[in-house]
Amino acid sequence: MSKKNIFYAQSGGVTAVINASAAGVIQSAREHSDFFGNVYAGANGILGALNNQLIDTAQLSDQEVQQLKYTPGGAFGSCRYKLKDLETHQAEYEQLIKVFKARDIQVFMYNGGGDSQDTAHKVSMMADQLNHPIQCIGIPKTIDNDLALTDNCPGFGSVAKYVAISTLEASLDVASMAQTSTKVFILEVMGRHTGWIAASSILARENGGMAPHIILCPERKLDIEAFKQKVNTTIDLYGYCVVVAAEGVQNLEGEFLAETSGKDAFGHAQLGGVAPILANIVKSECGHKVHWAVSDYLQRSARHIASKTDVDQAFSLGKAAVEAAMKGETGVMMTIERIQQNPYQWQIGRAPLEDVANIEKMLPESMFTPCGMDIAQSAADYFLPLIQGNSEPEFLNGLPNYFHKKLEIS
Amino acid sequence: MSKKNIFYAQSGGVTAVINASAAGVIQSAREHSDFFGNVYAGANGILGALNNQLIDTAQLSDQEVQQLKYTPGGAFGSCRYKLKDLETHQAEYEQLIKVFKARDIQVFMYNGGGDSQDTAHKVSMMADQLNHPIQCIGIPKTIDNDLALTDNCPGFGSVAKYVAISTLEASLDVASMAQTSTKVFILEVMGRHTGWIAASSILARENGGMAPHIILCPERKLDIEAFKQKVNTTIDLYGYCVVVAAEGVQNLEGEFLAETSGKDAFGHAQLGGVAPILANIVKSECGHKVHWAVSDYLQRSARHIASKTDVDQAFSLGKAAVEAAMKGETGVMMTIERIQQNPYQWQIGRAPLEDVANIEKMLPESMFTPCGMDIAQSAADYFLPLIQGNSEPEFLNGLPNYFHKKLEIS
Repeated sequence: MSKKNIFYAQSGGVTAVINASAAGVIQSAREHSDFFGNVYAGANGILGALNNQLIDTAQLSDQEVQQLKYTPGGAFGSCRYKLKDLETHQAEYEQLIKVFKARDIQVFMYNGGGDSQDTAHKVSMMADQLNHPIQCIGIPKTIDNDLALTDNCPGFGSVAKYVAISTLEASLDVASMAQTSTKVFILEVMGRHTGWIAASSILARENGGMAPHIILCPERKLDIEAFKQKVNTTIDLYGYCVVVAAEGVQNLEGEFLAETSGKDAFGHAQLGGVAPILANIVKSECGHKVHWAVSDYLQRSARHIASKTDVDQAFSLGKAAVEAAMKGETGVMMTIERIQQNPYQWQIGRAPLEDVANIEKMLPESMFTPCGMDIAQSAADYFLPLIQGNSEPEFLNGLPNYFHKKLEIS
Repeated sequence: MSKKNIFYAQSGGVTAVINASAAGVIQSAREHSDFFGNVYAGANGILGALNNQLIDTAQLSDQEVQQLKYTPGGAFGSCRYKLKDLETHQAEYEQLIKVFKARDIQVFMYNGGGDSQDTAHKVSMMADQLNHPIQCIGIPKTIDNDLALTDNCPGFGSVAKYVAISTLEASLDVASMAQTSTKVFILEVMGRHTGWIAASSILARENGGMAPHIILCPERKLDIEAFKQKVNTTIDLYGYCVVVAAEGVQNLEGEFLAETSGKDAFGHAQLGGVAPILANIVKSECGHKVHWAVSDYLQRSARHIASKTDVDQAFSLGKAAVEAAMKGETGVMMTIERIQQNPYQWQIGRAPLEDVANIEKMLPESMFTPCGMDIAQSAADYFLPLIQGNSEPEFLNGLPNYFHKKLEIS
């Protein structure tokens, strides 16, 4: 039997643990070298396949594969590129299959979010039509945690841990200063359509903390007047107020708050930022001194404080994808199933690619408090297991020793 | 001999390690219980003394003092309150001395920046005049690292570590995305007058990284045209560009960039933020997709990734202040002296309070590259020892188990 070559690609916004999934794929394929030949990674994701720019992962030593496991970002490059409809853009799919044929690739592993699972599904169909069957296997990844049919998404647990710890730490800071200075602290986190990340900040209260006092998610439109009142009430009660806001918060008119910015001194439209907008409201209309932070890429690349549970799951999903390929599976995405809540137990499952594709999982109704500006304490049951354990990278010179190798493209 | 009571106060912006200095004071005073009586902390800093609101630290168990050592923020509350001139506001000093007398306090330890050392100096003079001699001892603290006569300031090393790691991690993220999406990442850090924090981001290059490519400090006025050009050149060379900017960056006209914002949709003046201003320039005038982060309080409260060197120094300075008090010293600030560069060795020294007060230490000329938009690699010799070692807090439920006790004020 000839050995199967694998094509692995990273897709969309990267995470602190997507390289751990890559490490799972590469290491596992090496352990089954009787079954698998080359593992190629796409240079800049699926573009690598379209442009015939592949990275032969044989150039990574076993030690470097271990280093990948604790390196954030996408080591092979990612891309924001969605393949178009099969019917109207057949040529693109044909080009992909042509490269797969030329490299004798029989397994396609796509490590991404909903769009990527959709693409993997389409590639699978097209390959059948073109008589070059490809096993298409999805490996989930998204910090947004909005993929259907998996209990959670690799990348999310580490962001949740970063956001909870950052909220906790900043709340101790503002509490110290509130008597004479800053009374309100606003942290903006990612989440354009869903509030999973913002909601996870409730974990900051686990060890006796009070903050955050207000959590704003895209699922609930924001009544600015009610928000101002809640800020004032919180300050009356506790002396300070900590707010965590998702970037996609909308006002009652359904406009993204971040897009209600004016123009800067040069006449440019202001770039988004919910935090500065809310800060302006708090300062100008409530009269409180305010500080704000936007964690942006820091939150999704903070590998130094990654959740061990998240890293383990990301790695295991890569490994499981290889094992599924050995069994001849195709058209499936590997998933995380929660078997037991306490103590937390999970296992790998699978879902048909066509069922996962393009569904956005929103924060359930039950997680919100009635006012819509806070998350119910019971929601912590869902979030807490996902941030357990620390997975420290190796340190050198006081800094994480991340993977930096310049990779050859062939 | 009657025992001496100590009054300890935290002042100004708090840090990840100011409580470690408090722990050093309290633990050391307990070890010398034959010499010292009560250690009172001011509720909200010096205001606690003015309002006769003191926290008797006897209410903390030894274990809680250990917990203080790894808790960020100011556990007793801090304040932004500067005592006025001795001549014109004598009543305020008299009130302070009155409280000190009533509580039989003979030692005043002020844990703060330049202003605080100035206050400690004035209190010392006033106490002599009022015939209630107080030993006044300064314990340095400022993330800005701008205090004179000490090699570095506790709090700074941990911010430098946070900023270097965050820059490194975000640079791996943007490098992954640059082919089809974000090409520029801008991180805003603290530093209104000095660029020590921004400059420390060069440490992100220590383990083989390329970023940051541009570092903007308040000490060098920014030529926007030259900046745009450097962004473009960097992208041509590397495909992406990472910028670290101090909040206090000024344009050639000497205006704070953060104050050149326009008005928001509600007609409010925009709150500062150098990062969004620079991001607007990069997007509108260079045409690159850009992401930006403002780390604000997160950087100075990030105890989870504190530098062990910084924690050790902060604790030792508190301990040394107590030992100095035993020897009858007064009118001095404890300092850090760098004895040897490699391997790094340091010791505790002291400087007269009157010499420290109100001097701002700027980034030296020699640390800048000729273009003024980068830091010379040789500057790493200064910064690198300050971020060595990790000092992990105790974890519980996946989060640091920080000190949260509600303290009694008497």
